[in-house]
Amino acid sequence: MTAAVLVNGSPDPVVSIHDRGLAFGDGVFRTLLVRAGRPLNWERQYRRLVHDCVALALTPPGEHALLGEIAAVAPQEAVVKITVTRGAGPRGYAIAGGETPTRVVAAHPLPDYPEALAREGVHVRWCELVLGEQPRLAGVKSLNRLESVFARSEWDDPGIREGLLCDAAGCVIGGTMSNVFIVLAGALATPELSRCGVAGAQRERIIDLARDAGVSCEVRDIGVEELGRADEVFLTNSLMGLWPVSKLDDREWTRFPVADRFRERIADDDSRAA
Amino acid sequence: MTAAVLVNGSPDPVVSIHDRGLAFGDGVFRTLLVRAGRPLNWERQYRRLVHDCVALALTPPGEHALLGEIAAVAPQEAVVKITVTRGAGPRGYAIAGGETPTRVVAAHPLPDYPEALAREGVHVRWCELVLGEQPRLAGVKSLNRLESVFARSEWDDPGIREGLLCDAAGCVIGGTMSNVFIVLAGALATPELSRCGVAGAQRERIIDLARDAGVSCEVRDIGVEELGRADEVFLTNSLMGLWPVSKLDDREWTRFPVADRFRERIADDDSRAA
Repeated sequence: MTAAVLVNGSPDPVVSIHDRGLAFGDGVFRTLLVRAGRPLNWERQYRRLVHDCVALALTPPGEHALLGEIAAVAPQEAVVKITVTRGAGPRGYAIAGGETPTRVVAAHPLPDYPEALAREGVHVRWCELVLGEQPRLAGVKSLNRLESVFARSEWDDPGIREGLLCDAAGCVIGGTMSNVFIVLAGALATPELSRCGVAGAQRERIIDLARDAGVSCEVRDIGVEELGRADEVFLTNSLMGLWPVSKLDDREWTRFPVADRFRERIADDDSRAA
Repeated sequence: MTAAVLVNGSPDPVVSIHDRGLAFGDGVFRTLLVRAGRPLNWERQYRRLVHDCVALALTPPGEHALLGEIAAVAPQEAVVKITVTRGAGPRGYAIAGGETPTRVVAAHPLPDYPEALAREGVHVRWCELVLGEQPRLAGVKSLNRLESVFARSEWDDPGIREGLLCDAAGCVIGGTMSNVFIVLAGALATPELSRCGVAGAQRERIIDLARDAGVSCEVRDIGVEELGRADEVFLTNSLMGLWPVSKLDDREWTRFPVADRFRERIADDDSRAA
């Protein structure tokens, strides 16, 4: 028998009301895809999880135990969400130091993404919300995600698959749930995430795959205007894989040769790791 | 028999791992003092709670039900923390719309603040963390509190009672857990909280009490330099009441006539409401 959720190894799907994850969003999470019992892109997922734990001075869960729990909740196909919080503590912001982290490993249904999205591209919009600058949290997938919630609630047209966000300087940072890449004359660029944004494990993989393929991929500031004149724009996260953007407000794209090639590279990488 | 915690009216002190309060910090909270079974400064506390729920498009809990739950968890003296989240939902940032909010009313021990702090003033420091700008969350006591956690973890000297924070423009915003007021030639000023910060119910009361007493109280930007040359600086929240600042790094203050007068006004207001 398998449980769909393990909380510190126990199948009871609850946390204490004194958990600092609830009280302050004092924790981090990752979302990943399990196919045929195998967590995809695992090395980068675990590396990002450790990175984010360190950013919050949390003790990361051990890799072996985590893989065991993922296998228990998702023996075949599932989305798995891993959450690590600082655990329960007394009232107040101060970290006592003796907190025991809370580790939640939960299986969720696969997203119902039509396959056509990856082939034909997706419609995207600009969000009005401007991301706040906080270098201490930049790149980290923390549980402080109200900006993402606000941004995602700006539209309810199911035909719009993602919203793009900028910071106060007008630099593109990413989507509400994805990272963004642009293609200019065959080279890639993706936003620098040192002031805000979330660095996904799929983004890391694209950067690595580009390097391996001898394709330039700059990590730097990208303005709205530059994105609009890119040859291609594509989005990445661990569940969508890679979606080309076919429409952004009035701008349309119809050919995605570079995006298509990187989607193949992701698939190759997944099967090589199998 | 009374429970120390009620979660949607039930004494089981847990929330679902699918609660959006845990997943995204998608909720708000208030902390208040109950004396002789009476929640102090209640009207403003409830008004702020409603304001913050509206900021997140959450349905606020009804006042009557909330007062009943406060009385149940805190029949005499306690700190009571009220948390309202969007409740449990499927994975992903989108708000489905059918979520049932989670309401947590929890009693905590009274803080062990020596009485001398209010009379003799407290030692305070500047925090290095720079608050990010997010107008959509400014003033709101949301569950996205990692900045407060980071700031509070900058010191562990128990002699330092609070840390002060600025935004990127160098404006003073407040303490990690308190609002700040300065006194200049008998008049009060407190930071504008339209870009970041949390607007406490005690801050609202000081503003009201100043108006009632014919004392000028401006809500505006305050620079670090201006704070340093203030005749008095004091901190407010619902648990400390009002603490004068006696030392801020190298700057010292020894007389607090205006702070003392406002502390008396708070006490008068509490006894009038009884």
